[in-house]
Amino acid sequence: MLLEVILEVWTLWFVLAAAIASFIVAFILKKRVDVADPGNEEMVKVQGYIRDGASTFIKRQYITLAYFVGGLAIIIALVYWGNIRVPWYLMVISYLAGSGASAWAGWLGMKVGVDANAKTAQASTKGLAPAFNVSFFAGAVMGLIVVGAALGGVWLLYFVFGDPLVILGFSFGASSIALFAKAGGGIYTKTADVAADLVGKVEYSLPEDDPRNPASIADNVGDNVGDIAGMGADLFDSYVASILGAMLLAFSWIGARGYTTTDINLMTSFPLVISAAGLIASILGIFIIGKMGKSTPGKALNLGTYIATLIFIAVGALFTFFMTLTEGVSEDIKSQLWRNLWAGVFGVASGLVIGLTTDYFTNDEKRPTQLTAESSEQGHALNILTGFSYGLLSVAPPIIGIVIAMGVAYWLDGLIGVANASTGMLAIVGTIVSNDAFGPIVDNARGIAEQGGLSEKEIALCDRLDSAGNTAKAITKGFAIGAAALTVLALLYAFMEEAKHNPDIAQALKDMETISLDLMTPAVMISALLGTAVPMVYSAVLIMAVDKNAQVMVKEIRRQFEENPAILKGTEPADFEKCIDIATKGSLKELIVPILLSVVSPLVVGVLFGVQGLGAFLASTILIGFVFALLLSNSGGMWDNAKKYIEDGHLGGKGTFAHAAAVTGDTVGDPFKDTAGPSINTLITVMSLTASMFLSLFMLDIFNNGQGLLMNLFV
Amino acid sequence: MLLEVILEVWTLWFVLAAAIASFIVAFILKKRVDVADPGNEEMVKVQGYIRDGASTFIKRQYITLAYFVGGLAIIIALVYWGNIRVPWYLMVISYLAGSGASAWAGWLGMKVGVDANAKTAQASTKGLAPAFNVSFFAGAVMGLIVVGAALGGVWLLYFVFGDPLVILGFSFGASSIALFAKAGGGIYTKTADVAADLVGKVEYSLPEDDPRNPASIADNVGDNVGDIAGMGADLFDSYVASILGAMLLAFSWIGARGYTTTDINLMTSFPLVISAAGLIASILGIFIIGKMGKSTPGKALNLGTYIATLIFIAVGALFTFFMTLTEGVSEDIKSQLWRNLWAGVFGVASGLVIGLTTDYFTNDEKRPTQLTAESSEQGHALNILTGFSYGLLSVAPPIIGIVIAMGVAYWLDGLIGVANASTGMLAIVGTIVSNDAFGPIVDNARGIAEQGGLSEKEIALCDRLDSAGNTAKAITKGFAIGAAALTVLALLYAFMEEAKHNPDIAQALKDMETISLDLMTPAVMISALLGTAVPMVYSAVLIMAVDKNAQVMVKEIRRQFEENPAILKGTEPADFEKCIDIATKGSLKELIVPILLSVVSPLVVGVLFGVQGLGAFLASTILIGFVFALLLSNSGGMWDNAKKYIEDGHLGGKGTFAHAAAVTGDTVGDPFKDTAGPSINTLITVMSLTASMFLSLFMLDIFNNGQGLLMNLFV
Repeated sequence: MLLEVILEVWTLWFVLAAAIASFIVAFILKKRVDVADPGNEEMVKVQGYIRDGASTFIKRQYITLAYFVGGLAIIIALVYWGNIRVPWYLMVISYLAGSGASAWAGWLGMKVGVDANAKTAQASTKGLAPAFNVSFFAGAVMGLIVVGAALGGVWLLYFVFGDPLVILGFSFGASSIALFAKAGGGIYTKTADVAADLVGKVEYSLPEDDPRNPASIADNVGDNVGDIAGMGADLFDSYVASILGAMLLAFSWIGARGYTTTDINLMTSFPLVISAAGLIASILGIFIIGKMGKSTPGKALNLGTYIATLIFIAVGALFTFFMTLTEGVSEDIKSQLWRNLWAGVFGVASGLVIGLTTDYFTNDEKRPTQLTAESSEQGHALNILTGFSYGLLSVAPPIIGIVIAMGVAYWLDGLIGVANASTGMLAIVGTIVSNDAFGPIVDNARGIAEQGGLSEKEIALCDRLDSAGNTAKAITKGFAIGAAALTVLALLYAFMEEAKHNPDIAQALKDMETISLDLMTPAVMISALLGTAVPMVYSAVLIMAVDKNAQVMVKEIRRQFEENPAILKGTEPADFEKCIDIATKGSLKELIVPILLSVVSPLVVGVLFGVQGLGAFLASTILIGFVFALLLSNSGGMWDNAKKYIEDGHLGGKGTFAHAAAVTGDTVGDPFKDTAGPSINTLITVMSLTASMFLSLFMLDIFNNGQGLLMNLFV
Repeated sequence: MLLEVILEVWTLWFVLAAAIASFIVAFILKKRVDVADPGNEEMVKVQGYIRDGASTFIKRQYITLAYFVGGLAIIIALVYWGNIRVPWYLMVISYLAGSGASAWAGWLGMKVGVDANAKTAQASTKGLAPAFNVSFFAGAVMGLIVVGAALGGVWLLYFVFGDPLVILGFSFGASSIALFAKAGGGIYTKTADVAADLVGKVEYSLPEDDPRNPASIADNVGDNVGDIAGMGADLFDSYVASILGAMLLAFSWIGARGYTTTDINLMTSFPLVISAAGLIASILGIFIIGKMGKSTPGKALNLGTYIATLIFIAVGALFTFFMTLTEGVSEDIKSQLWRNLWAGVFGVASGLVIGLTTDYFTNDEKRPTQLTAESSEQGHALNILTGFSYGLLSVAPPIIGIVIAMGVAYWLDGLIGVANASTGMLAIVGTIVSNDAFGPIVDNARGIAEQGGLSEKEIALCDRLDSAGNTAKAITKGFAIGAAALTVLALLYAFMEEAKHNPDIAQALKDMETISLDLMTPAVMISALLGTAVPMVYSAVLIMAVDKNAQVMVKEIRRQFEENPAILKGTEPADFEKCIDIATKGSLKELIVPILLSVVSPLVVGVLFGVQGLGAFLASTILIGFVFALLLSNSGGMWDNAKKYIEDGHLGGKGTFAHAAAVTGDTVGDPFKDTAGPSINTLITVMSLTASMFLSLFMLDIFNNGQGLLMNLFV
């Protein structure tokens, strides 16, 4: 199959070229970060603590991951034993490649990010432009490596094996990493953040990032492992999954309708080619932001994203045009390619719109956040109630956005159109990850500037960069949320299509022709009911993990302050190691239940209630997970900004009763917006991929050929 | 049809007998409450304030309701104009009867409840037995009147018209009342409660129910209009809906399968007859609790519920046996009747199990609540986070309970079995409402004892009754939650069955034969996505209403304390009227959006996305609404009890930092558990009934015969 596909669809070479280009640019930018000045001795020391803390965490995490990935590889080998379409060793190789690529990209990107912490602080002594350059380029390295590794990996697998089903292993591998990196990193970062705030700010009135606080380094480490490495793994995962979903759907749907091989290959390759257009747009976008950001960083990040979007549309149209020039393409497929381009364009546009409407609910220049801040004057409880209710309201605009994107995409080209809308939404993910990684880098730079004794002016400059990072967040979040929802819907549809057309299972095929997700079927409704509990229990476990670990760390911080008063005076350094150790151990230990929920629960439901039940289970987890992730992310973001609004001097500013109440809201919001909320995206992706990955398991005779052990109950 | 049904299914006379018996017992008990001693002058005065406040609210509410019901009656008349199966005037009469019956039952029950407030306090001077008798009998009046009016009304309509579809109007009418009573009453009660606590407890350290607090009377009124009248209307609504769902399903399902009229009538009458068995069991249960409760009130309420359940099973079996004696019944239907009895038994048993598992999460003798209390020592934020995460966890056991009940019921007799499981669960609702109304009555009695200057001993006795009421709450809540979930599922299935077999619309019938709720169909998935937003936005609006009104009331309370220091000294009475006025006006004004969401949103979705889209919209609202209601109710309950746990002297008791944090949790939990959480049950019932009620509207030519205006988008 190898040469067959690539000789016909020569536009696929663009994909390789784009991936290579992204690596080249990434390494050029990395060099520029490498040579930057690491700052004074104190800063190098703090930087060393952070680097060591982050390495320790990543090492321990990857060792645990190695066991997990190894165990799953064996299970995959067993399930795919004797599989005609994808031999077991191919699936295992693909799985290992996916987990390896994501782990490598996350590790490298984080390393550059950590490096850039102190270097950005130091560069701030030379002015805005150098400081912006170091931090933004470091973020761009992460963005380009993530996208390059993901797209390159998918391209290579498709090039060599010619069947998108092989890529399922790659995607599942990337998901395994995301599960650990996002959920584990999320627990880590918020454990340190909450504990540092609870004792430092509330009990001892220390400012943010005060070096006397024993949790301050752990807090900085957390920003790197949670917000940089975790976010990178999360978007790597979504990106691959969105391409996979679109490829699988096109391959099985077009394949089942008597088109020529050329037509099938073209439609299957389309998501890859369009992603290559997005990657090129991202590279150009990064350059534009790099140029503009030297004077107006906040504006640059957002405007750059819009420009990247426009470039993506232009390059995408060009590539689509080239695809229609392929020899032997039918008129039908020509028009279908164009319609899918528009689905992608609609996807990326609705991502922007979702971001902008979400922004309304978390921006402190808008009423909801200001009202939340004002309600703090009536006490802790009303701050929580106001923020929570605006969080509830904020789910409506994104849902309407997704509904419109999905409706239009479906109208353009059915389920394939929906899948390509999600591919389009994620096409410029290179720019998105760059902008997103910029945030924690400048956040930490501010911390190091404080800890390294830089002047007020330089700290203010870091603050300015930090606020630019926050401005960009609303839009990048809109993309992440919208893309995750559309992607998992595409994966769900791909799963059902695969189940319908699974050619390996001749016996089951007959029964499965009638497959549907009809909620009037009790096995379907029961599975949907069970699915509702998953995001709730998953969120509960993650929030509790933060809560529990933070309480342990709070006790440790208090112990240090009480046993050694010199720490508070600033004459002796705090024992940072202890806090780092608590966060590291705690966050890995607490991952057991989340992992069981995301990997084991789909298997149990599939075995008991069959393929239809599993589909409904996924659908309801997606529906609840989507709104719940929105609620948690937006209310958390709003509380955070309401607190900042007060700290900026409104309503009496710091030290007031209103401020204390706003800090409560911020602390509640921390695990909402940075642990549970974004991890739900990973949860639903992992669950959807698990379902597709182990489809042939459910089709076994002993499980009633895909109808589940309990089928007799529901006839 | 009239004589036909009743002559064949003579067991239907049992229903009339049970309804009459419940009225007789209710009026006997009412007499006993009427003649009780109203207490000293101060108590009579306070009681007068409460009575006047409650009457004012109910009067204004009923006037608003009159416009609403009148408007809907006109719309119903228009939609049913020319309907062959149910003439428009019948549907309008049925609708008005339903709203009238529920309004009357709520008004009368509340009147007796309000009366019993002071009388219970006064009776406490004579000992436990008299105090228990007055309060429990007053609650039982509410319980018996609600069930008697509901069952009697349904029986009468079925007796006269012989077609369960007519009962849809009655059920929709009851829903209209529930919407106002539950959501409006919920806003009222929590506005006063939150405001009283925020200023009274937190700022001025006044004890609970302190007569100097200007919001104290409004708080008492709130307990009566929200927890008694609101809860009664809510359960009236669920009870009628569960009977209706089972009757409709049996009628159209059995009717479509070529059985004899006798068989159809028997299966359609079964839910009514089984409910009569439950009503008889409830009456006996009330007598048993009344006997036992004089010495051990807490034990009596729960044990009495168990005994009522056993009696229900016995009487239910007897009635089912009588039904199988009906002349001309087929063997098939005989066995089906028995299987549905077991479905009902399984329903009521799983209601108990759900209650007991839910109890684990809110009982202060169990770990979750204690851990929430302990986390308060780390501050406001960790109290919120711990309570919220246990709330998230607590959704799992009830979901598993519902899944098992639904699975077994379906295995017993398909969708009809599921519907009868919900009827079974609600059969002993007479006992449930009695136990539930007992709570706010004794809660208020405690307040009046405080305000009327009774001794510590008498207040302690009221406290003991209050704690008994709280013990019973876990189980009654389990019933309410489980029953609502199963009932709306049954209504959803009934709606889809009606859509399939709608005989009036010959043109649409052909297309509608393929009707399903297949999530693979984009119109279905899109509608499901839209449905997810409804419970969120609905909850947001209700919580915001409490939040907003409470802030207004807080300012009023502060104004009174500041302008007239004599109030705080206790030498001059506070201006209660002002607070009552704020709560009354605020709670009615804030109902507009909730009403639009529950009545208008199903109409819009039905018109745009057709019957299948509407079904999916309902299904997803039910799924999300169910878990969300559980989350809000349980976390709220847990925070409440964590606070009480500390106030009982644990962790340092009142006045500590932990106590302040626990009060924050309790205040957040107030609108969660008493406004938004339980109102979601009403929301999903009203939405489901609206869908069925206006089914023929969607079937119109201009709306593409049930396929919706946007059907062309999805072909």
